[in-house]
Amino acid sequence: MAEGQSLLMRKTLLVITGASQGYGECLAKTFAQRLPSGSACLLLSRKPAKVEEIRTENMEAFYEKFDQSNFAECGRLFIQGMMDKNGIKLADYEQTMIIHNSGVLGDLTKFAWEMEDKDMVANVINVNITGMILLNSALMQCCEDAGQKNISIINISTLAAVMPLPSCSLYCASKAARDMYLQVLAKERSWVRVLNWAPGPLDTEMMVSCRQCADDELRQSYIEMHEKKTLLTCSQSAEKLMLLLERNTFKSGEHIDYYDVKE
Amino acid sequence: MAEGQSLLMRKTLLVITGASQGYGECLAKTFAQRLPSGSACLLLSRKPAKVEEIRTENMEAFYEKFDQSNFAECGRLFIQGMMDKNGIKLADYEQTMIIHNSGVLGDLTKFAWEMEDKDMVANVINVNITGMILLNSALMQCCEDAGQKNISIINISTLAAVMPLPSCSLYCASKAARDMYLQVLAKERSWVRVLNWAPGPLDTEMMVSCRQCADDELRQSYIEMHEKKTLLTCSQSAEKLMLLLERNTFKSGEHIDYYDVKE
Repeated sequence: MAEGQSLLMRKTLLVITGASQGYGECLAKTFAQRLPSGSACLLLSRKPAKVEEIRTENMEAFYEKFDQSNFAECGRLFIQGMMDKNGIKLADYEQTMIIHNSGVLGDLTKFAWEMEDKDMVANVINVNITGMILLNSALMQCCEDAGQKNISIINISTLAAVMPLPSCSLYCASKAARDMYLQVLAKERSWVRVLNWAPGPLDTEMMVSCRQCADDELRQSYIEMHEKKTLLTCSQSAEKLMLLLERNTFKSGEHIDYYDVKE
Repeated sequence: MAEGQSLLMRKTLLVITGASQGYGECLAKTFAQRLPSGSACLLLSRKPAKVEEIRTENMEAFYEKFDQSNFAECGRLFIQGMMDKNGIKLADYEQTMIIHNSGVLGDLTKFAWEMEDKDMVANVINVNITGMILLNSALMQCCEDAGQKNISIINISTLAAVMPLPSCSLYCASKAARDMYLQVLAKERSWVRVLNWAPGPLDTEMMVSCRQCADDELRQSYIEMHEKKTLLTCSQSAEKLMLLLERNTFKSGEHIDYYDVKE
């Protein structure tokens, strides 16, 4: 897709992970207002997404239960099955847009040298990295099978992907890996539009865990952001992302932070 | 440990993963020549390490079978058991040095959007990230238990951790994650010396796979390095690392490449 031409103008099949709440849900609603008629959204999450609230005249919405830590669900057959079940044909759309929003923080009450809980560590790495890579490959292969060449991939990244934050070692490491995986992809497939989007400090459920993190200074800064109400709403952040996608002048694979984007 | 004081002067317990061949084996031999009398090395790898060739007057060497993809082996009990079995007492040494050398490339014949082989993808991520984090935590907790405060951690990183290389998505992503995990650790524990060391393009087994990678340009460059004999020997690279550890002026958590170090 040519750079500079808005990514929001084509009839789109949107796939969003972690779409049942928080930022993922907000993104689904925001895209539903912006995408042209005939678009559709496949909402993937462990908990049911609010399909009725998300669906608009322009954008049909479908929900499928999905757990990114279950690799069987991240395979091409499973994903193609979801599409078939809902009558979604990739070739009917002018582009496929994948939003990798699903992710977990891990135990922020522990420091990097205290990461001994095998199940917890493995779960963070599996959900944030392995499952995401498998799902991304499956979706891109489905596009390949359907002859769909117009693909945009938006990874919901974080400042933590590029800045080491004490007591956030698993989150930092796994998000750095995601950014890097997509940077490689962007180099490999020049025509795919890839964005590593750091949405800013959002007032979501995740922030409750952040306010309990082990590092005193970081914890205090999260508590202050909460008390002084300087956290961003999901909508504020989603609108900035829309601006980026409309302008569509970012370098594919780039990591862009909310605060980097000028109105 | 004070910066600027050589890290090679103290009686050291060295732990090296992937020590049976290639760079890991070379590092073990190099340290054996440099560390002071009374030092010891615990060699961890799937295949047996050549203990007799590594052991010197100054450095005792022990081998234990170890598979970083088996998380049970990355736990504190298992690691402490290995030490006990070999009569290693952490408190007997003036420092513990951990060399995270173990790692796998993944299937370089596939591009990022072709990462559909669940077992292969999971294995790369498990060995390079999850197992490494669990082992590192276990070793640091063993040090904590023994009151050992002098800890140095050297991650065998790569240019691929900081530069996206086509057809190396899993390697790039997992190595970026390792770097980041240790950057966080370096911020959390200012007295631990942490180095992300990119050893340069080494003439090892791994290069055979590199010469078969999917990306034409990268594959050609690896083939040329091989033909023109511009790859580094493991010893060349190990010597540069010794220089860095002697100088001990690096910023903890820093990523340093072979070619960045001036003699």
